[in-house]
Amino acid sequence: MADRRFFRVAGPFTLGQLAQIGGAELAFGSDAERLVEDVAPITTAGPSELSFLNNPRYLPALEASRAGACILDPRHAPRAPKGMDLLLTSVPYNAYARIAQAFYPAREFEGGIHETAVVDSSAIVGKGARLEAHVVVGPNAQVGARCHIAAQVVIGEGVVIGDDTRIESGASLSHCLIGERCHLHAGVRIGNRGFGFSLSSDGYEDVPQIGRVIVGDDAEIGANSTIDRGSGPDTVIGAGAKIDNLVQIGHNVQIGRGCILVAQSGVAGSTTLADQVMLAAQAGVAGHLTLGRSSRVAAKAGVMRDVPPGQTVCGIPAIPIKRFFRLVSIWQRQLKA
Amino acid sequence: MADRRFFRVAGPFTLGQLAQIGGAELAFGSDAERLVEDVAPITTAGPSELSFLNNPRYLPALEASRAGACILDPRHAPRAPKGMDLLLTSVPYNAYARIAQAFYPAREFEGGIHETAVVDSSAIVGKGARLEAHVVVGPNAQVGARCHIAAQVVIGEGVVIGDDTRIESGASLSHCLIGERCHLHAGVRIGNRGFGFSLSSDGYEDVPQIGRVIVGDDAEIGANSTIDRGSGPDTVIGAGAKIDNLVQIGHNVQIGRGCILVAQSGVAGSTTLADQVMLAAQAGVAGHLTLGRSSRVAAKAGVMRDVPPGQTVCGIPAIPIKRFFRLVSIWQRQLKA
Amino acid sequence: MADRRFFRVAGPFTLGQLAQIGGAELAFGSDAERLVEDVAPITTAGPSELSFLNNPRYLPALEASRAGACILDPRHAPRAPKGMDLLLTSVPYNAYARIAQAFYPAREFEGGIHETAVVDSSAIVGKGARLEAHVVVGPNAQVGARCHIAAQVVIGEGVVIGDDTRIESGASLSHCLIGERCHLHAGVRIGNRGFGFSLSSDGYEDVPQIGRVIVGDDAEIGANSTIDRGSGPDTVIGAGAKIDNLVQIGHNVQIGRGCILVAQSGVAGSTTLADQVMLAAQAGVAGHLTLGRSSRVAAKAGVMRDVPPGQTVCGIPAIPIKRFFRLVSIWQRQLKA
Repeated sequence: MADRRFFRVAGPFTLGQLAQIGGAELAFGSDAERLVEDVAPITTAGPSELSFLNNPRYLPALEASRAGACILDPRHAPRAPKGMDLLLTSVPYNAYARIAQAFYPAREFEGGIHETAVVDSSAIVGKGARLEAHVVVGPNAQVGARCHIAAQVVIGEGVVIGDDTRIESGASLSHCLIGERCHLHAGVRIGNRGFGFSLSSDGYEDVPQIGRVIVGDDAEIGANSTIDRGSGPDTVIGAGAKIDNLVQIGHNVQIGRGCILVAQSGVAGSTTLADQVMLAAQAGVAGHLTLGRSSRVAAKAGVMRDVPPGQTVCGIPAIPIKRFFRLVSIWQRQLKA
Repeated sequence: MADRRFFRVAGPFTLGQLAQIGGAELAFGSDAERLVEDVAPITTAGPSELSFLNNPRYLPALEASRAGACILDPRHAPRAPKGMDLLLTSVPYNAYARIAQAFYPAREFEGGIHETAVVDSSAIVGKGARLEAHVVVGPNAQVGARCHIAAQVVIGEGVVIGDDTRIESGASLSHCLIGERCHLHAGVRIGNRGFGFSLSSDGYEDVPQIGRVIVGDDAEIGANSTIDRGSGPDTVIGAGAKIDNLVQIGHNVQIGRGCILVAQSGVAGSTTLADQVMLAAQAGVAGHLTLGRSSRVAAKAGVMRDVPPGQTVCGIPAIPIKRFFRLVSIWQRQLKA
Repeated sequence: MADRRFFRVAGPFTLGQLAQIGGAELAFGSDAERLVEDVAPITTAGPSELSFLNNPRYLPALEASRAGACILDPRHAPRAPKGMDLLLTSVPYNAYARIAQAFYPAREFEGGIHETAVVDSSAIVGKGARLEAHVVVGPNAQVGARCHIAAQVVIGEGVVIGDDTRIESGASLSHCLIGERCHLHAGVRIGNRGFGFSLSSDGYEDVPQIGRVIVGDDAEIGANSTIDRGSGPDTVIGAGAKIDNLVQIGHNVQIGRGCILVAQSGVAGSTTLADQVMLAAQAGVAGHLTLGRSSRVAAKAGVMRDVPPGQTVCGIPAIPIKRFFRLVSIWQRQLKA
């Protein structure tokens, strides 16, 4: 059961209702009228709770589980304990996501500007937006309707934030346009002066960075991640992109729609990721490259060349993953010799 | 001598007193009544100061040192200049730690809530706690006795912080329970929504993250590090764990007691580190793994499998360190051929 | 054209004026009286705008460009479209930097301390300095003349900041002395307690960290980067050093003048980088090492030994780059076999 200090649970729902919400099928013999009070992990769920099995690694936990009901793939149904009601679907994690959203809908919040917030008189704050303590909004900035701006956030001059976007504590934004329904996490830094300078005989010459950061609708940007503004072109984060914590995006980078960038990965300046590209944790991509649609970069890989659409690369320098693991097995043989 | 703008020195102490504080033995012929005014690095210490030698790499610096006294291992005593008084111990760094603590005890601070702090009326702030400028404390949060909460810290709704914990500027906490005597550094982000979503035909479905972060007593978390809350289970940081700067901890991760995670390392979701595990700088561990008690991961290594207790691994993918260095010497031979 | 919500353009300038500003030569047949209204990227510049070509990768874009004028190397001049006026120089990026600075000079700002800033009565704030909303300045701190301190910055007790330094939102500084004309980006954390502790039988003993951070003039430190204070010696960042985002600098590290540390790189405690050293992105350097003058570390490399002056190293563990790429070609041959 989620800690009531932090989460409010909706429900209860009948299993039949949940099957509908999750797009899953009630298994033969399962009780559509069973009342479910909450979701819970397979290891801790009790008789009034619903769990899910997504990763076969947790099949032994399923067998030992006391959960009243479970969402799982039909082929895993035989492993469920007797008496456990089942919701069947080929995409159990997806069904769980929707059902958990029903139990834990986004919390409603009261609009209003906290008395300690400093909002420039030329800024526009949309209807229903909530600005918490010590928020700062600069001249000519626009905060969309129903935005939730947490404590200590700084929104710089001219910044535009679309409706229903949420920004967590301590983030700061400048030189950027943010879409609707985005979620920017605590400590995010958007619109920083990119790392642009030119070497000269007497040190470095700053190159003015006169582009922006454009963040598409529904994008998520993780805690303490940094996104530099463009040098002239813009830096662009595509709609629906999911960027994790401590990720670095250099100036002029283009991140396509629905890309996933896992924690501590980084993309150097002027590189383009087409739609649906995935960078695993701690991966890095050099500057001025193109990664094709749906290409994937393994954890810790270092990409030094363009990657064709659909290809998965691994290693430093990164090569196609099959070649990489062939190399690893060559090394293993050499170690045995 | 430490800069008096930042540090206040206690003392002086006699060498005899310091021997006792540090658990070290006064060398034969050293003067127990010698007055020591401060500690200082071996290269800059003068006649009224005490230094230490921990790393043999600095033996030449010892020989050239003007320090009045030095803590060192007895086997290095012959290398000390004549006239330098010596404190002997097999653990010189430890003795130095205790002696330096005597010279630089934790500074006392005055309790009280700064007039610009925003503390919800339902929050509880313990006796003697200090809340500096612009601190925000949400509804139903609890701040323990004698906590020192620096400027601009945000403590979210329901968060509980144990006694004597210190939080540096600009950190933000939500959905978490923090132990006693912890030290959270500037810009730390705890309790962020984990990177949890499920792919569906029309983009990504957010999976509600309904767990917490539990941080044990005496834990230290470095500047700008990020710790996501659990997805259902909790994310747990064990008592006495030492986490450095810019470290990423994914949802549901369990970090054991006394673990050490050096800067820029990361642990992916649902992985467990048993007690006393050490990750060196920039190391990464994939999700859903177990690292056994006292296992160690070398700098920059990428761990893709479970690691048995006590084992040290290195490389990408990580293998036992002896094998890794055997592989390196195979490469060296191939380069010579 | 740069977005007028964020940038104010100066000018127009004649091409002749710009040639002089940029130290470039007007090509034969180009019109010195041509009026240039702005700078713009080669792909989007129009007839009233000036662009530049630095990277031959963009020669096709030059050929297709509608820019009125372009800065480039004389050997690329033949590739320019007819009618495009040209500024010739062997260092086009440098010339562009100076010309762009003319179009986009550092914005003037009004001095003054925002009414929500909390400045200790013993602190000194220089003439013309600007302290924005919610800035906190501790006891005995000094902020130089004409400093621009953005919203939510925390300047700790005793900290000294030189004239004309700029600090972006949400940064926090303690135990440090900062030079003149520095630029510290959003979320920077300077002066944190270094990762110093000693193992003992009953856990860890904190080693008091009684050094400072000294940052030289004209240094730049990127968003969310962390620099720990010294343990006894100081941590030093040389004049003119350029540190990118999410970089970690451990205690006692010495960074030489003009060093470049690209994003997500890290330097462990007590290591020295001589002048002009470059670390590429995600590189790491172990503790207690010395990297010689003008040495370079490739992206993602892991340095475990001293590096001689001028040498470039690559790989984990890092070796001279030529050897590394010889090793890569050995691997390629093995994969083919």
